[in-house]
Amino acid sequence: MNNVTMLHGAGGKYMLQFIRQYVLKYFGDLGRNIDVPLYLLEDSAIINGIAFTTDSYTVYPLFFPGGDIGRMAVCGTVNDLAVKGATKILGISCGLIIEEGVELAMIEQILNSMRTASIEAETSIITGDTKVVERGRVDKLLINCSGIGAPEKELFHNYEVIRRSRGDSSSMWLINKNIRPGDRLILNGPIGDHAVAILSARGELGIKSEVKSDVAPLNKLMREALKTGGITCAKDPTRGGMAGLLNEWAESTGLGFILHEEAIPISPAAKAASELLGIDMLEVGNEGKVVMCVVNEKAEEVLASIKKNGWRHASLIGYVTDSFKGVVLETSIGGKRIIPPPVGDPVPRIC
Amino acid sequence: MNNVTMLHGAGGKYMLQFIRQYVLKYFGDLGRNIDVPLYLLEDSAIINGIAFTTDSYTVYPLFFPGGDIGRMAVCGTVNDLAVKGATKILGISCGLIIEEGVELAMIEQILNSMRTASIEAETSIITGDTKVVERGRVDKLLINCSGIGAPEKELFHNYEVIRRSRGDSSSMWLINKNIRPGDRLILNGPIGDHAVAILSARGELGIKSEVKSDVAPLNKLMREALKTGGITCAKDPTRGGMAGLLNEWAESTGLGFILHEEAIPISPAAKAASELLGIDMLEVGNEGKVVMCVVNEKAEEVLASIKKNGWRHASLIGYVTDSFKGVVLETSIGGKRIIPPPVGDPVPRIC
Repeated sequence: MNNVTMLHGAGGKYMLQFIRQYVLKYFGDLGRNIDVPLYLLEDSAIINGIAFTTDSYTVYPLFFPGGDIGRMAVCGTVNDLAVKGATKILGISCGLIIEEGVELAMIEQILNSMRTASIEAETSIITGDTKVVERGRVDKLLINCSGIGAPEKELFHNYEVIRRSRGDSSSMWLINKNIRPGDRLILNGPIGDHAVAILSARGELGIKSEVKSDVAPLNKLMREALKTGGITCAKDPTRGGMAGLLNEWAESTGLGFILHEEAIPISPAAKAASELLGIDMLEVGNEGKVVMCVVNEKAEEVLASIKKNGWRHASLIGYVTDSFKGVVLETSIGGKRIIPPPVGDPVPRIC
Repeated sequence: MNNVTMLHGAGGKYMLQFIRQYVLKYFGDLGRNIDVPLYLLEDSAIINGIAFTTDSYTVYPLFFPGGDIGRMAVCGTVNDLAVKGATKILGISCGLIIEEGVELAMIEQILNSMRTASIEAETSIITGDTKVVERGRVDKLLINCSGIGAPEKELFHNYEVIRRSRGDSSSMWLINKNIRPGDRLILNGPIGDHAVAILSARGELGIKSEVKSDVAPLNKLMREALKTGGITCAKDPTRGGMAGLLNEWAESTGLGFILHEEAIPISPAAKAASELLGIDMLEVGNEGKVVMCVVNEKAEEVLASIKKNGWRHASLIGYVTDSFKGVVLETSIGGKRIIPPPVGDPVPRIC
């Protein structure tokens, strides 16, 4: 392939290939004294004790049930920091690229969403940039948010719990290389809702749906969970979904990830949409969701704390093993299915 | 106006209005304990001793004499940090939004430019994000870079020099509110070259030009200048050019800025293009340029240090006064001309 295709940005196999062959080729060897450098491909870099992340938001339509591009941008940035343990969000940047002719009232509504989401995440937008481009050079509005975050005392406590449990070779930050066989997997709520909300807003669902996107900031959830301690790694299953996330973990750790199908929460509407459109809900991007790896002896306790904090569908969905490398789904009747990394998007891109 | 126009992004009067009426309305009151908050509209926010900035790059063509969009993105980000005094660039993010179908070889060339510029600025790209969008949803490639930076010992030394000179009400950071009547203005090199390079690459110049864009990282220049001490504020004259920058300073300080026309360095090609196309070179965006305010007694010494570091056209171009508010250009024959804030771009946007 000599040209960029949609697959290069879809969160699957080709995207990883693109990142390795191009991005890491030019940027991967630079950067010394970095706690979590680029080549680890974590959601945030960590340098001088500060987590730093960036994401561009190109979702359409700009408004959908439960949210809009502005809310997605702020929450996505907060979450990329929070899942690595930087639950104190120091500040967020707002880079707007606006097509001339767009209604100011629409921009205002999106800025207001960004404000609300910042307040929910106990942070604020502290720097920004606005570019307006000629008609046709972008489709209405694109947003980039970057963010910086810092660890709080809960992360240090969490680290102490892990060290007591398994010695001290782990990182304080919740990064992939901390994952060990025996860790349990916790998911904080049902998958697929964001996909259904977006498809519904695009009129691609064919059925009427009341499902709202679950886009939300997760730094408070992470902070509360860290209080119990024992979380070794965490990541939000956005582009590429659960399948992408777990295969990324399998690839970077060389370990196996076993999922119990009946334990994975999914709303009835997402299940229906999945059967109707033939979409694998394990492959679609989610918002407001996080998968945590937790040391076995703390797993039930962390789950209870997450439920207590309002995530009543949170669930222990599986565990980590060293008996193979990859991702396997176990069905309730004893069947086993290998979950490969998604090749591209199962549906038009939704995040 | 109910709709966004090109003027809203042009670095002039309407852009400032848009930022005040929309961006500051929703984000301006948030963010406590911030050293340099959003509402000051500086190039970087400063929080917990860290400078943080963002910029989206929408320039076209993507390649031009002396640089490309990748070099512009890295240098622009470095410079927004450096001009505030954060000369140690901790890390830069790279957010790519690519139109499907674009040649991978072109992306590769741009990533390579970003690499080279990072090395020049003694920093690295430590986190990133790549989105691919359907054909027609963006024009080939957009880049967002954000950056974080820290002060170095030279900034603390500079602060000591200022404190000795005028008492201690100033900020350590090189922000607008440090500017005082009597400060001298230094520009590090000729204006207009970037504009001429871009116009030439677009075929809009009508004459053959050998001029290259002067896009370059300025953190080493800033570090060297700070060693002498006495710099109270600095900013790079990008969008809106010198006219935009100085009117921003006038607006935020209530002071007057006097420029000596014959002291402002401008290359013969930029002068020719200016006369040919009727472009006011004070209004066009520059890259690799910085205007510094310096306490009077240190101005000659700082200028000498800048020249010694390779900027041989650096010049003392004017001074700050409290006898009026605004920007005035004094010509060599004794004429005076008020320089208003640019309304919009004098030419199609070039940065």
